[in-house]
Amino acid sequence: MDKKIKTVGLFGKFQDQTVVEHILQLEEFLLGRKLKTLLDQSATGHLKGAKSPIRPRDAIGREIDLAIVIGGDGTLLNVARDLAPLRVPIIGVNLGRLGFLADVQAEHMIAEIGKILDGDFQTETRLLLHAEVMRKGRIVHNASAFNDVIVSKGELARMIEFETYIDGEFVHSIRGDGIIVASPTGSTAYALSAGGPILHPALEAIAVVPICPHTLSNRPIVFSSDSIVEILMTRIADQHAYASFDGQSTFTLQDNDRVYVRRAETEVELVHPSGRSHFEVMRIKLHWGRKI
Amino acid sequence: MDKKIKTVGLFGKFQDQTVVEHILQLEEFLLGRKLKTLLDQSATGHLKGAKSPIRPRDAIGREIDLAIVIGGDGTLLNVARDLAPLRVPIIGVNLGRLGFLADVQAEHMIAEIGKILDGDFQTETRLLLHAEVMRKGRIVHNASAFNDVIVSKGELARMIEFETYIDGEFVHSIRGDGIIVASPTGSTAYALSAGGPILHPALEAIAVVPICPHTLSNRPIVFSSDSIVEILMTRIADQHAYASFDGQSTFTLQDNDRVYVRRAETEVELVHPSGRSHFEVMRIKLHWGRKI
Amino acid sequence: MDKKIKTVGLFGKFQDQTVVEHILQLEEFLLGRKLKTLLDQSATGHLKGAKSPIRPRDAIGREIDLAIVIGGDGTLLNVARDLAPLRVPIIGVNLGRLGFLADVQAEHMIAEIGKILDGDFQTETRLLLHAEVMRKGRIVHNASAFNDVIVSKGELARMIEFETYIDGEFVHSIRGDGIIVASPTGSTAYALSAGGPILHPALEAIAVVPICPHTLSNRPIVFSSDSIVEILMTRIADQHAYASFDGQSTFTLQDNDRVYVRRAETEVELVHPSGRSHFEVMRIKLHWGRKI
Amino acid sequence: MDKKIKTVGLFGKFQDQTVVEHILQLEEFLLGRKLKTLLDQSATGHLKGAKSPIRPRDAIGREIDLAIVIGGDGTLLNVARDLAPLRVPIIGVNLGRLGFLADVQAEHMIAEIGKILDGDFQTETRLLLHAEVMRKGRIVHNASAFNDVIVSKGELARMIEFETYIDGEFVHSIRGDGIIVASPTGSTAYALSAGGPILHPALEAIAVVPICPHTLSNRPIVFSSDSIVEILMTRIADQHAYASFDGQSTFTLQDNDRVYVRRAETEVELVHPSGRSHFEVMRIKLHWGRKI
Repeated sequence: MDKKIKTVGLFGKFQDQTVVEHILQLEEFLLGRKLKTLLDQSATGHLKGAKSPIRPRDAIGREIDLAIVIGGDGTLLNVARDLAPLRVPIIGVNLGRLGFLADVQAEHMIAEIGKILDGDFQTETRLLLHAEVMRKGRIVHNASAFNDVIVSKGELARMIEFETYIDGEFVHSIRGDGIIVASPTGSTAYALSAGGPILHPALEAIAVVPICPHTLSNRPIVFSSDSIVEILMTRIADQHAYASFDGQSTFTLQDNDRVYVRRAETEVELVHPSGRSHFEVMRIKLHWGRKI
Repeated sequence: MDKKIKTVGLFGKFQDQTVVEHILQLEEFLLGRKLKTLLDQSATGHLKGAKSPIRPRDAIGREIDLAIVIGGDGTLLNVARDLAPLRVPIIGVNLGRLGFLADVQAEHMIAEIGKILDGDFQTETRLLLHAEVMRKGRIVHNASAFNDVIVSKGELARMIEFETYIDGEFVHSIRGDGIIVASPTGSTAYALSAGGPILHPALEAIAVVPICPHTLSNRPIVFSSDSIVEILMTRIADQHAYASFDGQSTFTLQDNDRVYVRRAETEVELVHPSGRSHFEVMRIKLHWGRKI
Repeated sequence: MDKKIKTVGLFGKFQDQTVVEHILQLEEFLLGRKLKTLLDQSATGHLKGAKSPIRPRDAIGREIDLAIVIGGDGTLLNVARDLAPLRVPIIGVNLGRLGFLADVQAEHMIAEIGKILDGDFQTETRLLLHAEVMRKGRIVHNASAFNDVIVSKGELARMIEFETYIDGEFVHSIRGDGIIVASPTGSTAYALSAGGPILHPALEAIAVVPICPHTLSNRPIVFSSDSIVEILMTRIADQHAYASFDGQSTFTLQDNDRVYVRRAETEVELVHPSGRSHFEVMRIKLHWGRKI
Repeated sequence: MDKKIKTVGLFGKFQDQTVVEHILQLEEFLLGRKLKTLLDQSATGHLKGAKSPIRPRDAIGREIDLAIVIGGDGTLLNVARDLAPLRVPIIGVNLGRLGFLADVQAEHMIAEIGKILDGDFQTETRLLLHAEVMRKGRIVHNASAFNDVIVSKGELARMIEFETYIDGEFVHSIRGDGIIVASPTGSTAYALSAGGPILHPALEAIAVVPICPHTLSNRPIVFSSDSIVEILMTRIADQHAYASFDGQSTFTLQDNDRVYVRRAETEVELVHPSGRSHFEVMRIKLHWGRKI
C-alpha cells in the first residue's frame, strides 16, 4: 500500500443489518476525510441512504486504492480472490469473533482505520492458489483459492481413491475421504481440522493434507510453492467426488480427472493496524499457551 | 457354536463370479459331509448349477446353525447385522485381502472349514450397536450397526454443529465434519482413519471419534458399552447432514434431531480357525512392528 | 462413604505455607463439628499451632473414615495409592488450578466440605494399576500407580526397543521413546500429551499409548482392565531405560526385563460435592466446546 | 559435484567388520580407476591391509573431492556436519535397511558408484541448522545439526516449561517433554515420531514440533529457513534439561538459557545414483500406498 489512498471500496455481507450499519458509519467517516467511496455490487438493494455509487465486482478493483471488508474471514476470502489480480490492498473488519484475516474489531473500526489512513499500518502479502481440472487432455475448470483446494468424496460414506504427484513425481496412492491442498493462509482453516501443520503466513510453501486416509501411514507433506501438485482421481466409481475452492465453489469430478494446484501469479495484500502479531491472533483463536 | 452343525447358510456377493465358484465348491464339500446347505436370497439368478434351496434373508437365520460368508468385511457386516438376533455363528472367507473379520483365506477355505467342522475352532462374540433417531419426540428411524454409526455433513464443504451427551450428561459442542460412534469392531474401520484408538474386540466399550473437528482440543472418548451416547444436531442450517450405519444405509437428519446410540441387545458370534490371533491380523493389516 | 464419619485425616504439601493455612482453617472447622482430626506424617515440623496428632502414613489409614488432601492432583495421587488398600474415601481440594481429581476449589473449601459432611455428596471409584518388574524369573520391583506406569528411555536421545503383550499374546514391537500404560484416570494426564484417547473414568479399561514411536503405524490400544499387559525390554543396549509410577517413583530397567501391569486389587474412592460433572471439568481444563 | 573427481574420502563405522570389508572392496575399486583414496581418522587401528593414508577429520575435507560413507543415516549425519563447511559432495551407502540419506544399497555399491563416477548421477543440497545456547548474555555452546536440534527434559518424568519465539516474536509457552527444531531432512527422523509433518527436502523451511505437550492445542509450525527460532527455558527447576544435536551430542541447559536455531551458512551436498526418487524412498520406509 505505497501510493496515496484516494478511493476506498466497501465490501460486506449486506444482507446483514449490522454490516449495513457499520458500512454507513464507515462511509460517513471516509467521506469526512475527503476520500471517494464505492460500494461493491452486493450492496444493491440493501443499502438505503448510502451516498456512494455501486460498482460491479469485476470493475470496482480498477477504481479503488484500498478495499475494506466488513464481516468475517469467509467474506474476505471471497473479495480477496477477486481483487488479487489488481493487487488492491485489503483491510478486514470482523463483527464478532476475531478472524485470522479480519483482525480489526468492529468496535474499534473507526479509530483503527483512521490510524491506518494516517500511515500507521503494516502490510503483508499472502500467496494465492490456482487450480485447474484436466479431463481427457482439456482444462474443464479453473478457479483460484486463498485458503485451500479440497478434493473430497460426496455424500455417501464410502471412500475415493486417488494418487498425488508433486512436480510430476508420484508421491502416494490414498484411499480416504479426500485431500486438502492448502496455502499458508489455509493452514489454519480446514487443513488444521484434518491434522495439518501450521505454516507461517510468509512461508513460500503449500501443504498437502489427507482427509481421513484409510491407512495409518499418511502424513501431511509441505513443499515449495514453486511446485505443482496433481491429484489424479483413480477410483471414484459410482461415488460422487468434487473439488472445492475455499469451500465457496465446487466442481464435480470424474474418474481420471486430474486436479492441478499451483501458486497463482497474483498475491493478496493485507493491511493491518501497526503492532499486530500473527501469533497473538493464533494464541487467542487456538487457545495456545501464553506467557506464564 | 455349541450345538451340532446340521444346516449351513451360504452368503456372498453373488454378482461376483469368483464368489460363485467358491460357493459351488463349498456347497459340494458340505454336501459331501452330509450337511444341509441353504443359499441366501441374494443368490437368486446368479447361481446356475447350485443344488441348495434359496431362502429369504429374514427367514434363513431360523433354519441354519452356521453362516459362511464369502467376500470381504463389508459383506460380512451386512449378513452379521441380519443374523445377530438369532445369534447364528458366522465364518468369514476373504477373497483377496485379509479382512479384520473375514479371516479365512479363500485358497485354504476347504481345509480351514473342514477343521472348523471337525471341532477345531475358536469363537468370539462382538457387540453390535443400535441407533435411534428421535425427531419432535418420536423415533423416526432405527438401525443396527456392527462397525459404526456416523453422523456426517453432506456434500457441501461447510461444517455442521452438534452436541454430544453420554448418559444424558453434556460432553461437548463440536463444529466439524461429523462424529463416529464406533464399536470395538469398528475401531479399526473408519474411526481409525479419523484418528481414533484401537479397542480390543472383547472390550465392552464404545468410542466417540470426531471427524475433522474445527478445534484443536477434541479427542476421542471411550466409555462403557452400558452407556448411551446422544448426538443432538444443533445447526445443520441449509447444509445436509445424515446418519450412516456401517456405511451401508443412511438417513437424512434435520436440525434438532437426536441420534441415540447404545449397545444392541444381540451380539455377533464369529467363528475362527483355531490359533487365530487378532493382533496378528492387525500387524499384517496395519503394518505394525513384528518381533525383530 | 457409607458409614458415619468420625475421624478425618488431613494431607497436603505442608512445605507450602498456603497449604498450612488451609489445613489449620479446616482443622478448626472440623473440630468445631466435633470430629476427630489426624495429620499425615508429612506435617511434621511444618505445622505449629495445629491441635491434631500426627500419624505415620502406613498407620493413619486404619484410623480415619475420610481423607482430605489439600494441594493438586499430584499430591492426591500420592495419598490415594497409599490409602487404597484400606479404601478410605478421599476429597481433593485444589489451590489454584482446578484439578481432574482435586475439584473442590480452596475458596469454597469450608462450604463444600460442610455440605459433604451433611450428606450432600457423590462418590465414584477409580481403578488403580499394579506393576511388577520381572528379571530372570524373579520379581525385582513392584509398585502401584493411579495414573500410569511409564516405560521410558533415559536422558540420551536414542530410542529403546520393546515388545508389548496383552494376556500373553504378542501385540507389537516398538522402537521409540517408550510406552504409557494408563488407567482411565491417567488418560487425561501424560497419556493425553502422547496422543492417547480419553477414557471415561468409570470404564473398566486400560490404555497403552506409545511415546513418539519411530513408525507411522502405531496407535493407542484400549483393552479390558481384566487383562494383563506386558512390556518386554528387547533392546536398551547402552541406553538407560526406566519404569516410572505416576511420575513419582522410578525403577531402572535392564535388557530382558518384563514389566507387567494389571489392575490392582484395591480401588480409590473419590468423594465430590453433589452435582459435579466430570465432563464440566474436562471442558474447563481441555478448552472443549461449550453449548453455543 | 561439478569438478573432476580425483580424490575420494572413505568414511564409516570401522568397528563394524562388514563396514571394513566394504571399505576395502571400495578402495580396491577406486584405486583401480586411478583415483586417490584417503581414510577418515576413525579407521585408525581398524583397517589392516588398507592402502590409503589416514587423515584427521578436520583436515580430510580439504583434500577430497568426494566422500563416500558406508553405514547408515546416523554415520552420514556425523560426517556431513563436519564436511559441510567445505561443501564436499557425499554418497551414502547403507548396509541393511535403506536410509533416507544413505540410499546406495551395499550389494550394488560397486556398480552404483561406478555409474556415479562415470557421470551418471544427480545431486541435491540440503540445509543444515546451526544452534547457539546463550546464558547471561554469552554464547556458552554452539553446534550444527543436519536433522534436528532437540530441547528435552531429562530422565525424570516431570515436564519442563519453555517459550518459543520466531524472529523475536513470541509464539507460545509450552509445558511438556520438549521441542524439536527440524530441518527438512530431519522431518522424517525424530520430528516424525513426535507428530510433525514431512517437509520436502528442497523446501527452504524449518519445522518446530513440540514433544508430548501437556495441552491439546499445540501443533507443529513450519516457517521460512530465513527465520530464527528461539527457545527460552522458563522452568527447568530441579529437573534436568538438555539440548541435543542430531541425537549425537548434548549440552545441559539451565533456567533462562536461550537456544537459538537458524539455518547454517553452509549446506550439505548429497550425490545419488540417477533416477532416484525421494518419494520412492518414503514409500518404502513409511509404508505409503503405491499405485494400485
